[in-house]
Amino acid sequence: MSATFELEMEVRDYELDFQGIVNNAVYLNYLEFTRHKYLDAKGLNFVDLHRNGIDLVVSRNEIDYKQSLRAGDRFIVTVNTEMVGHVRLVFHQQILRLPERTVCIKAKVTGVALRNGRPIPVTEISNHQNLTA
Amino acid sequence: MSATFELEMEVRDYELDFQGIVNNAVYLNYLEFTRHKYLDAKGLNFVDLHRNGIDLVVSRNEIDYKQSLRAGDRFIVTVNTEMVGHVRLVFHQQILRLPERTVCIKAKVTGVALRNGRPIPVTEISNHQNLTA
Amino acid sequence: MSATFELEMEVRDYELDFQGIVNNAVYLNYLEFTRHKYLDAKGLNFVDLHRNGIDLVVSRNEIDYKQSLRAGDRFIVTVNTEMVGHVRLVFHQQILRLPERTVCIKAKVTGVALRNGRPIPVTEISNHQNLTA
Amino acid sequence: MSATFELEMEVRDYELDFQGIVNNAVYLNYLEFTRHKYLDAKGLNFVDLHRNGIDLVVSRNEIDYKQSLRAGDRFIVTVNTEMVGHVRLVFHQQILRLPERTVCIKAKVTGVALRNGRPIPVTEISNHQNLTA
Repeated sequence: MSATFELEMEVRDYELDFQGIVNNAVYLNYLEFTRHKYLDAKGLNFVDLHRNGIDLVVSRNEIDYKQSLRAGDRFIVTVNTEMVGHVRLVFHQQILRLPERTVCIKAKVTGVALRNGRPIPVTEISNHQNLTA
Repeated sequence: MSATFELEMEVRDYELDFQGIVNNAVYLNYLEFTRHKYLDAKGLNFVDLHRNGIDLVVSRNEIDYKQSLRAGDRFIVTVNTEMVGHVRLVFHQQILRLPERTVCIKAKVTGVALRNGRPIPVTEISNHQNLTA
Repeated sequence: MSATFELEMEVRDYELDFQGIVNNAVYLNYLEFTRHKYLDAKGLNFVDLHRNGIDLVVSRNEIDYKQSLRAGDRFIVTVNTEMVGHVRLVFHQQILRLPERTVCIKAKVTGVALRNGRPIPVTEISNHQNLTA
Repeated sequence: MSATFELEMEVRDYELDFQGIVNNAVYLNYLEFTRHKYLDAKGLNFVDLHRNGIDLVVSRNEIDYKQSLRAGDRFIVTVNTEMVGHVRLVFHQQILRLPERTVCIKAKVTGVALRNGRPIPVTEISNHQNLTA
């Protein structure tokens, strides 16, 4: 598995729902933004790939909600990656509330690369060592 | 398991991402909206429960993305419920693109009811037969 | 000015903020969705136009927030259009809470059509009579 | 008018629409987040105020869209404030794309403080000098 990539973020008031907690769908935005930053750091830009006819899409999300984030919370989003076969790139992610790094979210996100709607080997967009280094 | 509840919806252009498909987080909004309508039909209103000190929250989401929804697509969101033990209410959900009812999303969403942040038996908010009828 | 186009919608719980009211940005989604349905009814599809190299964009929004929408509210979004010069299409819109049609939002939204990032006469995408009929 | 408050942010891919530009409603989120940070810096916390029975709400938005933000753009959001009468606090805001500080958005946002749904003098939540210092 890859070394851990980390990004620090904070809750924005418009992301809270009427219960005063971050809505369950918003965490997927945090997770996605962090994956894109991770891939950027690996030289893979989402938007550029799209322009070259390759779409990276999520094929499966498994999200465990352990603790809710609330107004003003700062947190870390982590990414570790793992290849599963040739076409699936699995992102193991966590959201950790600061300052104690309390585990709020544990996620396993499976991504695939599509060309003309069909999965292609991940190695066509980057080499194995790069993505899971 | 309960009888199937269905709601018809349509994609709104602002829900599309730069790839021209519905973003992976937006499907969680569709699923949640449909669960709330389902619970409403059972006499359980989310906002009223919150005012009475009870928050229904998602503890786990498992989402399989089979096909993407695109601009102008109409679709059905389904709900079936199942009790797992005393505190977990599991929603089995699908998103089916019209007119062929093509399976786009399969989801298993686990919900729990919290009072003062602690799980309470689901039977405290409704009886078993009602929720899974 | 054009005849009034109307669309009925309802508040979804995920659109509420921690104050229990619809967040100020979400109304722009309601207004946009209704404009797109209006244009669709006129034979102008937003996504198709984009594929043909023409982007309709908002150049100015004036929004008066008179009353807030809350959980479960149903409402009507209206559209009337007016040409201002050759390149600006102005949408006069209201959001009316049901059942009394209480005015919640009054909006004046100015749109322009861009090709290669430059404004083009609105008549290049549709005739004047059609858009303001 | 107050001294200029500035916050640096960046576009997240999930905020793009199918045209590859930031959707017109999303800018309102950027503007709001920055206003809340500004008020925080003045000792006024939105969520705390709500818990004390006071809601700060937007009564009018005037937004000029000069240039679109795109994938990966970094930008500055500015705030200057001005009192208009006793109950209206006007936020003059801009969104400036980096590195050239190109003006993308110019906004005039009028806020009011409500207690039990009725406007109260802004001086009840903070003194004039503080808010416009």
